[in-house]
Amino acid sequence: MTQTRAYGATSASEPLAPLNIERREPGPRDVKIDILYCGVCHSDLHTARNEWQNTLYPSVPGHEIVGTVTAVGAQVTQFKPGDTVGVGCMVDSCQHCASCAEGEEQYCENGFTGTYNGPMFGGENTWGGYSENIVVDEKFVLRVNHNAEQLAAVAPLLCAGITTYSPLRHWNVGPGKKVGIVGLGGLGHMGVKLAHAMGAHVVLFTTSPGKQEDAKRLGADEVVVSKDQAQMAQHTASFDFILSTVAASHNLDPFLALLKRDGTLCLVGAPEHPHPSPTVFNLILKRRQIAGSLIGGIRETQEMLDFCAKHGIVSDIEMIPIKDINQAYERMLKGDVKYRFVIDMATLD
Amino acid sequence: MTQTRAYGATSASEPLAPLNIERREPGPRDVKIDILYCGVCHSDLHTARNEWQNTLYPSVPGHEIVGTVTAVGAQVTQFKPGDTVGVGCMVDSCQHCASCAEGEEQYCENGFTGTYNGPMFGGENTWGGYSENIVVDEKFVLRVNHNAEQLAAVAPLLCAGITTYSPLRHWNVGPGKKVGIVGLGGLGHMGVKLAHAMGAHVVLFTTSPGKQEDAKRLGADEVVVSKDQAQMAQHTASFDFILSTVAASHNLDPFLALLKRDGTLCLVGAPEHPHPSPTVFNLILKRRQIAGSLIGGIRETQEMLDFCAKHGIVSDIEMIPIKDINQAYERMLKGDVKYRFVIDMATLD
Repeated sequence: MTQTRAYGATSASEPLAPLNIERREPGPRDVKIDILYCGVCHSDLHTARNEWQNTLYPSVPGHEIVGTVTAVGAQVTQFKPGDTVGVGCMVDSCQHCASCAEGEEQYCENGFTGTYNGPMFGGENTWGGYSENIVVDEKFVLRVNHNAEQLAAVAPLLCAGITTYSPLRHWNVGPGKKVGIVGLGGLGHMGVKLAHAMGAHVVLFTTSPGKQEDAKRLGADEVVVSKDQAQMAQHTASFDFILSTVAASHNLDPFLALLKRDGTLCLVGAPEHPHPSPTVFNLILKRRQIAGSLIGGIRETQEMLDFCAKHGIVSDIEMIPIKDINQAYERMLKGDVKYRFVIDMATLD
Repeated sequence: MTQTRAYGATSASEPLAPLNIERREPGPRDVKIDILYCGVCHSDLHTARNEWQNTLYPSVPGHEIVGTVTAVGAQVTQFKPGDTVGVGCMVDSCQHCASCAEGEEQYCENGFTGTYNGPMFGGENTWGGYSENIVVDEKFVLRVNHNAEQLAAVAPLLCAGITTYSPLRHWNVGPGKKVGIVGLGGLGHMGVKLAHAMGAHVVLFTTSPGKQEDAKRLGADEVVVSKDQAQMAQHTASFDFILSTVAASHNLDPFLALLKRDGTLCLVGAPEHPHPSPTVFNLILKRRQIAGSLIGGIRETQEMLDFCAKHGIVSDIEMIPIKDINQAYERMLKGDVKYRFVIDMATLD
């Protein structure tokens, strides 16, 4: 075991503060990574504050990790010290179920192991990226090919990026497709960039008229204020796919009505309170679908990182020192960030 | 115009009674059909009683029609007098939108014309199959290849059959697939027969333990009482596709939990009151989908009739004289029919 400095919560009611955790020594298939940057995801806050009632304390959040390999186990073949790598939301899975066999470890039928807060369906605690280093099985380590000056802004790709990339790919977004992205936050701004780079016609839905200019800068072809019924009506039955990144409870019907026959509304946010029940007629009359999607598999995460490197895509970020994490959470709750906080882990010193 | 005897409602509060309607003379592309049998669909009752608040009176229901061609227009090429034919839920559509071009007239973007109660999105009234004859554009006439003694039981295929066949085909039900059918009524019993004939492993979900034997006779491999949580739990995450034929408001979550990754729950019934809002986590954690589906296109309806003729599939019916239609509606409301009423139209005399 190695004593490792970290930042975390010891209870739901305490702010995050410095603490020490123990990392395992790298086993034969492990990669040890010095963490350079870690993105701040809303899940970090939910977990630190036990809002999903499943937090194991002490809790060290962080699953948007970019760092440098410092040591590898004897059987590691894909990485060597000095490599720039990433770690996302998962650090292990059963590796033998149908989903794992198909490279969809995020749907592991025995429950993947989260980068923090342990296995999804119970088990020992794990500690995430708000720390100086991490030890991860090489199967869950990603290669980062972006330029050195982009690395901080690469970190959010490991969760916000793959969470939007995976459904866009799964539902065949590309040239000739009209695609909606609902919400311009950490996930939404990545959805706009990715769908644009995939060649789709991208429409950003927002409740804030003030976001128009920024959405267009990020790659939206059109911006629709979703509270404006007249604007919404102009897009009736015209979308192939709509990705809702909004985690708050909201009425799905106005978006379902915008889908073409066989179109899909995909949800990647799970609301604390249920959405109003969607109208079944909206589904039946055009064979529309409501779906959900969870992050992405490791193979697909690597594909996403390579796609982003090729297209020069990173997240729009605001860098913070680790001591500001509690204020960052408060600002995140108010939507006051464009569009993702990233912790400079050198500030842990 | 031809005076035609029929049975219909003159207001929402009156029982159905004999009345006369006028049919157009067959135009160059029309087929005139003497009606032998007409199935009784729950939509007939909804329309006769104005339960969807869109009924034009007088209302003559009936869209599960089997009959004999008596005359054809000069340009009709596919039918001749003496042919046995069917007419389903549609008698016209715009014929130039994307859905019509793809043979999915049920999703016509300008609104198909219902066999009764006129165009879906407004327009002149049309009168359905509770009548001695009907005149229909040949594009909306189906060929019936079943044996003569099966014709009464063929009638329900035109709505109950295609409404279940189309989603089963669209979601690739076949050998190696585990498929659920929810509800054993007019639609459900067709769903069981069709999914079985397609080669799937079929599980019937019912709230009535007494339906077990009948469901197995119809082709179900297993029967699950959906109120029995222990029985339900044995099937967690094991279904490729579940078709819910239940129109009453019900909790979708217990069925969503039974779907595998990428599985779909398809609804073909539209409840009067919304279903409880489905849990988004159930969708996200296995990329599951909730969809709707509406009858089927004309090409697919012909395919379904041919499939049924080949596999010896018809509906299980109870034949009634037209004068008993009001009692039949009352029995249908209590689920007291195995599994579809069909009117012997000779009793109109």
